[in-house]
Amino acid sequence: MGKEPWLDDDEQKAWRSYLLMHKTLETHLERHLQREFGLSKSDFEILVNLSESDTGRMRAFELGQLTQWEKSRMSHHLSRMEKRGLISKESCDSRYPEIAITEAGRAAIKACAPAHAARVREFFVDVFGPDRLAVLGEVSDDIVEAIGKHCDTDCPPAVSGLNAS
Amino acid sequence: MGKEPWLDDDEQKAWRSYLLMHKTLETHLERHLQREFGLSKSDFEILVNLSESDTGRMRAFELGQLTQWEKSRMSHHLSRMEKRGLISKESCDSRYPEIAITEAGRAAIKACAPAHAARVREFFVDVFGPDRLAVLGEVSDDIVEAIGKHCDTDCPPAVSGLNAS
Repeated sequence: MGKEPWLDDDEQKAWRSYLLMHKTLETHLERHLQREFGLSKSDFEILVNLSESDTGRMRAFELGQLTQWEKSRMSHHLSRMEKRGLISKESCDSRYPEIAITEAGRAAIKACAPAHAARVREFFVDVFGPDRLAVLGEVSDDIVEAIGKHCDTDCPPAVSGLNAS
Repeated sequence: MGKEPWLDDDEQKAWRSYLLMHKTLETHLERHLQREFGLSKSDFEILVNLSESDTGRMRAFELGQLTQWEKSRMSHHLSRMEKRGLISKESCDSRYPEIAITEAGRAAIKACAPAHAARVREFFVDVFGPDRLAVLGEVSDDIVEAIGKHCDTDCPPAVSGLNAS
Protein backbone atom coordinates (compact mmCIF):
# COMPACT_ATOMS: atom_id res chain seq x y z
CA MET A 1 0.00 0.00 0.00
CA GLY A 2 1.33 3.50 0.68
CA LYS A 3 0.78 4.17 -2.99
CA GLU A 4 -2.03 6.45 -4.11
CA PRO A 5 -5.18 4.52 -4.88
CA TRP A 6 -5.39 6.13 -8.31
CA LEU A 7 -4.08 4.09 -11.17
CA ASP A 8 -1.18 5.58 -13.08
CA ASP A 9 -1.38 5.84 -16.86
CA ASP A 10 0.13 2.43 -17.58
CA GLU A 11 -2.05 0.70 -15.02
CA GLN A 12 -5.15 2.48 -16.26
CA LYS A 13 -4.35 1.54 -19.83
CA ALA A 14 -3.84 -2.14 -18.99
CA TRP A 15 -7.00 -2.26 -16.86
CA ARG A 16 -9.08 -0.76 -19.61
CA SER A 17 -7.54 -3.02 -22.23
CA TYR A 18 -8.47 -5.94 -20.03
CA LEU A 19 -12.06 -4.77 -19.57
CA LEU A 20 -12.46 -4.15 -23.27
CA MET A 21 -11.00 -7.56 -24.08
CA HIS A 22 -13.34 -9.33 -21.69
CA LYS A 23 -16.40 -7.56 -23.02
CA THR A 24 -15.41 -8.04 -26.64
CA LEU A 25 -14.68 -11.73 -26.16
CA GLU A 26 -17.82 -12.34 -24.12
CA THR A 27 -19.99 -10.57 -26.68
CA HIS A 28 -18.36 -12.47 -29.50
CA LEU A 29 -18.87 -15.87 -27.84
CA GLU A 30 -22.45 -15.01 -26.90
CA ARG A 31 -23.40 -13.92 -30.39
CA HIS A 32 -21.86 -17.01 -31.86
CA LEU A 33 -23.80 -19.29 -29.51
CA GLN A 34 -27.00 -17.43 -30.21
CA ARG A 35 -26.61 -17.28 -33.94
CA GLU A 36 -25.31 -20.76 -34.63
CA PHE A 37 -27.04 -22.73 -31.90
CA GLY A 38 -29.93 -20.60 -30.65
CA LEU A 39 -28.57 -20.61 -27.12
CA SER A 40 -28.21 -17.56 -24.92
CA LYS A 41 -25.31 -17.12 -22.54
CA SER A 42 -27.73 -17.93 -19.72
CA ASP A 43 -28.93 -21.14 -21.40
CA PHE A 44 -25.34 -22.18 -21.90
CA GLU A 45 -24.39 -21.47 -18.32
CA ILE A 46 -27.23 -23.59 -16.95
CA LEU A 47 -26.64 -26.44 -19.39
CA VAL A 48 -22.88 -26.54 -18.68
CA ASN A 49 -23.46 -26.72 -14.95
CA LEU A 50 -26.11 -29.43 -15.21
CA SER A 51 -24.25 -31.49 -17.79
CA GLU A 52 -21.12 -31.51 -15.64
CA SER A 53 -22.85 -32.62 -12.48
CA ASP A 54 -22.65 -36.35 -11.84
CA THR A 55 -26.37 -36.86 -11.97
CA GLY A 56 -27.38 -34.24 -14.55
CA ARG A 57 -29.58 -32.63 -11.94
CA MET A 58 -29.22 -29.93 -9.32
CA ARG A 59 -31.41 -27.94 -6.97
CA ALA A 60 -32.30 -24.46 -8.22
CA PHE A 61 -30.54 -22.89 -5.24
CA GLU A 62 -27.34 -24.75 -6.10
CA LEU A 63 -27.53 -23.36 -9.62
CA GLY A 64 -28.07 -19.97 -8.02
CA GLN A 65 -24.88 -20.30 -6.01
CA LEU A 66 -22.91 -21.36 -9.06
CA THR A 67 -24.24 -18.65 -11.36
CA GLN A 68 -24.70 -15.90 -8.76
CA TRP A 69 -28.04 -15.04 -10.33
CA GLU A 70 -30.84 -13.48 -8.35
CA LYS A 71 -33.58 -15.92 -7.38
CA SER A 72 -36.22 -14.31 -9.61
CA ARG A 73 -33.94 -14.30 -12.63
CA MET A 74 -33.17 -17.98 -12.05
CA SER A 75 -36.83 -18.85 -11.66
CA HIS A 76 -37.88 -17.04 -14.83
CA HIS A 77 -35.03 -18.39 -16.87
CA LEU A 78 -35.58 -21.98 -15.79
CA SER A 79 -39.25 -21.69 -16.73
CA ARG A 80 -38.34 -20.52 -20.20
CA MET A 81 -35.81 -23.34 -20.61
CA GLU A 82 -38.39 -25.86 -19.42
CA LYS A 83 -40.86 -24.66 -22.06
CA ARG A 84 -38.19 -25.18 -24.70
CA GLY A 85 -37.59 -28.71 -23.44
CA LEU A 86 -33.94 -28.12 -22.42
CA ILE A 87 -34.52 -28.90 -18.75
CA SER A 88 -37.27 -30.39 -16.64
CA LYS A 89 -38.34 -29.56 -13.11
CA GLU A 90 -38.70 -32.70 -11.09
CA SER A 91 -39.72 -32.66 -7.51
CA CYS A 92 -42.56 -33.38 -5.18
CA ASP A 93 -41.87 -29.99 -3.58
CA SER A 94 -42.57 -27.24 -6.09
CA ARG A 95 -40.84 -24.63 -3.93
CA TYR A 96 -37.53 -26.46 -4.19
CA PRO A 97 -37.64 -28.20 -7.54
CA GLU A 98 -34.83 -30.33 -8.75
CA ILE A 99 -33.67 -29.25 -12.18
CA ALA A 100 -32.69 -31.98 -14.61
CA ILE A 101 -31.07 -31.64 -17.99
CA THR A 102 -33.19 -33.35 -20.67
CA GLU A 103 -32.01 -35.35 -23.63
CA ALA A 104 -32.65 -32.25 -25.75
CA GLY A 105 -30.58 -30.20 -23.33
CA ARG A 106 -27.71 -32.66 -23.56
CA ALA A 107 -27.96 -32.67 -27.33
CA ALA A 108 -27.87 -28.86 -27.38
CA ILE A 109 -24.75 -28.58 -25.25
CA LYS A 110 -23.07 -31.41 -27.15
CA ALA A 111 -23.81 -29.70 -30.46
CA CYS A 112 -22.34 -26.33 -29.51
CA ALA A 113 -19.41 -27.36 -27.31
CA PRO A 114 -16.80 -28.13 -29.99
CA ALA A 115 -17.45 -24.91 -31.91
CA HIS A 116 -17.43 -22.92 -28.68
CA ALA A 117 -14.16 -24.50 -27.57
CA ALA A 118 -12.66 -23.77 -30.98
CA ARG A 119 -13.48 -20.07 -30.58
CA VAL A 120 -12.07 -19.98 -27.06
CA ARG A 121 -8.91 -21.56 -28.45
CA GLU A 122 -8.63 -19.22 -31.44
CA PHE A 123 -9.32 -15.93 -29.66
CA PHE A 124 -8.01 -16.58 -26.17
CA VAL A 125 -5.88 -19.68 -25.59
CA ASP A 126 -3.78 -19.40 -28.74
CA VAL A 127 -3.35 -15.61 -28.46
CA PHE A 128 -1.98 -16.01 -24.94
CA GLY A 129 0.13 -19.04 -25.76
CA PRO A 130 0.93 -21.67 -23.12
CA ASP A 131 3.35 -19.72 -20.93
CA ARG A 132 1.37 -16.51 -20.64
CA LEU A 133 -1.83 -18.52 -20.23
CA ALA A 134 -0.32 -20.43 -17.32
CA VAL A 135 0.67 -17.13 -15.67
CA LEU A 136 -2.83 -15.76 -16.19
CA GLY A 137 -4.31 -18.84 -14.55
CA GLU A 138 -2.04 -18.46 -11.53
CA VAL A 139 -2.71 -14.76 -11.09
CA SER A 140 -6.44 -15.40 -11.51
CA ASP A 141 -6.35 -17.95 -8.70
CA ASP A 142 -4.45 -15.45 -6.53
CA ILE A 143 -7.08 -12.77 -7.16
CA VAL A 144 -9.95 -15.10 -6.29
CA GLU A 145 -8.13 -16.07 -3.12
CA ALA A 146 -7.41 -12.45 -2.18
CA ILE A 147 -11.03 -11.44 -2.62
CA GLY A 148 -12.15 -14.53 -0.71
CA LYS A 149 -9.92 -13.62 2.21
CA HIS A 150 -11.11 -10.06 2.18
CA CYS A 151 -14.77 -11.01 2.16
CA ASP A 152 -15.90 -13.00 5.09
CA THR A 153 -19.64 -12.94 4.90
CA ASP A 154 -20.95 -10.31 2.55
CA CYS A 155 -19.44 -11.55 -0.67
CA PRO A 156 -19.60 -15.33 -1.06
CA PRO A 157 -17.18 -16.72 -3.64
CA ALA A 158 -18.46 -16.66 -7.16
CA VAL A 159 -18.24 -19.84 -9.16
CA SER A 160 -18.79 -19.55 -12.85
CA GLY A 161 -19.83 -21.90 -15.56
CA LEU A 162 -20.17 -18.88 -17.81
CA ASN A 163 -18.79 -19.54 -21.25
CA ALA A 164 -16.95 -22.51 -19.88
CA SER A 165 -16.13 -25.02 -22.53
CA MET B 1 -4.37 -24.54 -36.11
CA GLY B 2 -4.17 -28.28 -36.84
CA LYS B 3 -4.76 -28.82 -33.15
CA GLU B 4 -8.02 -30.22 -31.88
CA PRO B 5 -10.49 -27.49 -30.92
CA TRP B 6 -10.91 -29.02 -27.48
CA LEU B 7 -8.91 -27.45 -24.72
CA ASP B 8 -6.45 -29.70 -22.96
CA ASP B 9 -6.48 -29.95 -19.18
CA ASP B 10 -4.05 -27.08 -18.57
CA GLU B 11 -5.82 -24.79 -21.03
CA GLN B 12 -9.21 -25.66 -19.60
CA LYS B 13 -7.99 -25.01 -16.07
CA ALA B 14 -6.53 -21.60 -16.97
CA TRP B 15 -9.64 -20.60 -18.91
CA ARG B 16 -11.89 -21.51 -16.02
CA SER B 17 -9.63 -19.77 -13.52
CA TYR B 18 -9.84 -16.69 -15.68
CA LEU B 19 -13.65 -16.83 -15.93
CA LEU B 20 -14.00 -17.34 -12.19
CA MET B 21 -11.60 -14.45 -11.51
CA HIS B 22 -13.50 -12.10 -13.77
CA LYS B 23 -16.85 -12.97 -12.26
CA THR B 24 -15.55 -12.81 -8.70
CA LEU B 25 -13.86 -9.46 -9.26
CA GLU B 26 -16.82 -8.00 -11.12
CA THR B 27 -19.24 -9.12 -8.42
CA HIS B 28 -16.98 -7.74 -5.71
CA LEU B 29 -16.62 -4.34 -7.38
CA GLU B 30 -20.35 -4.17 -8.11
CA ARG B 31 -21.37 -4.97 -4.56
CA HIS B 32 -18.95 -2.41 -3.21
CA LEU B 33 -20.31 0.31 -5.48
CA GLN B 34 -23.87 -0.60 -4.58
CA ARG B 35 -23.31 -0.87 -0.86
CA GLU B 36 -21.07 2.12 -0.30
CA PHE B 37 -22.35 4.51 -2.95
CA GLY B 38 -25.78 3.27 -4.00
CA LEU B 39 -24.65 2.90 -7.60
CA SER B 40 -25.28 -0.12 -9.78
CA LYS B 41 -22.75 -1.32 -12.31
CA SER B 42 -25.02 0.12 -15.00
CA ASP B 43 -25.19 3.53 -13.29
CA PHE B 44 -21.43 3.53 -13.01
CA GLU B 45 -20.91 2.60 -16.63
CA ILE B 46 -23.13 5.42 -17.87
CA LEU B 47 -21.63 7.99 -15.51
CA VAL B 48 -18.05 7.06 -16.43
CA ASN B 49 -18.78 7.40 -20.13
CA LEU B 50 -20.55 10.74 -19.74
CA SER B 51 -18.04 12.22 -17.30
CA GLU B 52 -15.16 11.39 -19.63
CA SER B 53 -16.71 12.93 -22.70
CA ASP B 54 -15.53 16.46 -23.43
CA THR B 55 -18.95 17.97 -23.08
CA GLY B 56 -20.48 15.73 -20.43
CA ARG B 57 -23.17 14.78 -22.87
CA MET B 58 -23.76 12.11 -25.46
CA ARG B 59 -26.53 10.81 -27.67
CA ALA B 60 -28.27 7.71 -26.32
CA PHE B 61 -27.19 5.71 -29.36
CA GLU B 62 -23.55 6.62 -28.71
CA LEU B 63 -23.92 5.34 -25.17
CA GLY B 64 -25.47 2.22 -26.69
CA GLN B 65 -22.43 1.68 -28.87
CA LEU B 66 -20.07 2.13 -25.95
CA THR B 67 -21.96 -0.11 -23.56
CA GLN B 68 -23.31 -2.59 -26.10
CA TRP B 69 -26.67 -2.54 -24.33
CA GLU B 70 -29.89 -3.27 -26.14
CA LYS B 71 -31.90 -0.15 -26.98
CA SER B 72 -34.74 -0.98 -24.59
CA ARG B 73 -32.38 -1.62 -21.69
CA MET B 74 -30.67 1.70 -22.34
CA SER B 75 -33.95 3.56 -22.53
CA HIS B 76 -35.28 2.09 -19.30
CA HIS B 77 -32.06 2.60 -17.43
CA LEU B 78 -31.65 6.20 -18.53
CA SER B 79 -35.21 6.94 -17.39
CA ARG B 80 -34.45 5.55 -13.96
CA MET B 81 -31.23 7.56 -13.74
CA GLU B 82 -33.07 10.68 -14.80
CA LYS B 83 -35.61 10.20 -12.01
CA ARG B 84 -32.76 9.96 -9.54
CA GLY B 85 -31.27 13.19 -10.88
CA LEU B 86 -28.01 11.62 -12.10
CA ILE B 87 -28.56 12.53 -15.73
CA SER B 88 -30.91 14.73 -17.71
CA LYS B 89 -32.37 14.23 -21.16
CA GLU B 90 -31.98 17.36 -23.22
CA SER B 91 -33.20 17.61 -26.73
CA CYS B 92 -35.86 19.05 -28.91
CA ASP B 93 -36.21 15.62 -30.49
CA SER B 94 -37.46 13.14 -27.90
CA ARG B 95 -36.64 10.17 -30.12
CA TYR B 96 -32.96 11.05 -30.06
CA PRO B 97 -32.40 12.75 -26.73
CA GLU B 98 -29.03 14.05 -25.71
CA ILE B 99 -28.04 12.67 -22.34
CA ALA B 100 -26.19 15.02 -20.00
CA ILE B 101 -24.54 14.24 -16.71
CA THR B 102 -25.93 16.46 -13.95
CA GLU B 103 -24.06 18.04 -11.06
CA ALA B 104 -25.43 15.25 -8.86
CA GLY B 105 -24.15 12.70 -11.39
CA ARG B 106 -20.70 14.27 -11.36
CA ALA B 107 -20.72 14.33 -7.58
CA ALA B 108 -21.70 10.64 -7.48
CA ILE B 109 -18.90 9.52 -9.78
CA LYS B 110 -16.39 11.77 -8.01
CA ALA B 111 -17.38 10.31 -4.65
CA CYS B 112 -16.96 6.68 -5.65
CA ALA B 113 -14.00 6.87 -8.02
CA PRO B 114 -11.13 6.88 -5.49
CA ALA B 115 -12.54 3.95 -3.50
CA HIS B 116 -13.26 2.06 -6.70
CA ALA B 117 -9.74 2.68 -8.00
CA ALA B 118 -8.30 1.54 -4.67
CA ARG B 119 -10.14 -1.79 -5.00
CA VAL B 120 -9.03 -2.25 -8.58
CA ARG B 121 -5.47 -1.61 -7.38
CA GLU B 122 -5.68 -3.95 -4.41
CA PHE B 123 -7.36 -6.91 -6.10
CA PHE B 124 -6.12 -6.62 -9.66
CA VAL B 125 -3.26 -4.23 -10.39
CA ASP B 126 -1.13 -5.12 -7.37
CA VAL B 127 -1.79 -8.87 -7.64
CA PHE B 128 -0.57 -8.84 -11.24
CA GLY B 129 2.32 -6.52 -10.56
CA PRO B 130 3.68 -4.18 -13.26
CA ASP B 131 5.34 -6.72 -15.58
CA ARG B 132 2.54 -9.24 -15.72
CA LEU B 133 -0.01 -6.45 -15.97
CA ALA B 134 1.79 -5.00 -18.98
CA VAL B 135 1.75 -8.42 -20.65
CA LEU B 136 -1.96 -8.79 -19.93
CA GLY B 137 -2.63 -5.40 -21.50
CA GLU B 138 -0.72 -6.36 -24.64
CA VAL B 139 -2.42 -9.74 -25.02
CA SER B 140 -5.79 -8.09 -24.39
CA ASP B 141 -5.17 -5.64 -27.22
CA ASP B 142 -4.16 -8.55 -29.47
CA ILE B 143 -7.38 -10.41 -28.67
CA VAL B 144 -9.54 -7.37 -29.39
CA GLU B 145 -7.70 -6.90 -32.67
CA ALA B 146 -8.07 -10.58 -33.63
CA ILE B 147 -11.80 -10.53 -32.96
CA GLY B 148 -12.14 -7.24 -34.81
CA LYS B 149 -10.42 -8.69 -37.86
CA HIS B 150 -12.55 -11.80 -37.73
CA CYS B 151 -15.79 -9.87 -37.50
CA ASP B 152 -16.50 -7.61 -40.37
CA THR B 153 -20.09 -6.64 -39.97
CA ASP B 154 -21.96 -8.81 -37.54
CA CYS B 155 -19.97 -8.08 -34.42
CA PRO B 156 -18.99 -4.43 -34.05
CA PRO B 157 -16.13 -3.85 -31.63
CA ALA B 158 -17.22 -3.56 -28.03
CA VAL B 159 -16.02 -0.58 -26.07
CA SER B 160 -16.42 -0.73 -22.35
CA GLY B 161 -16.61 1.78 -19.60
CA LEU B 162 -17.61 -1.07 -17.32
CA ASN B 163 -15.91 -0.85 -13.99
CA ALA B 164 -13.42 1.57 -15.47
CA SER B 165 -11.82 3.73 -12.88
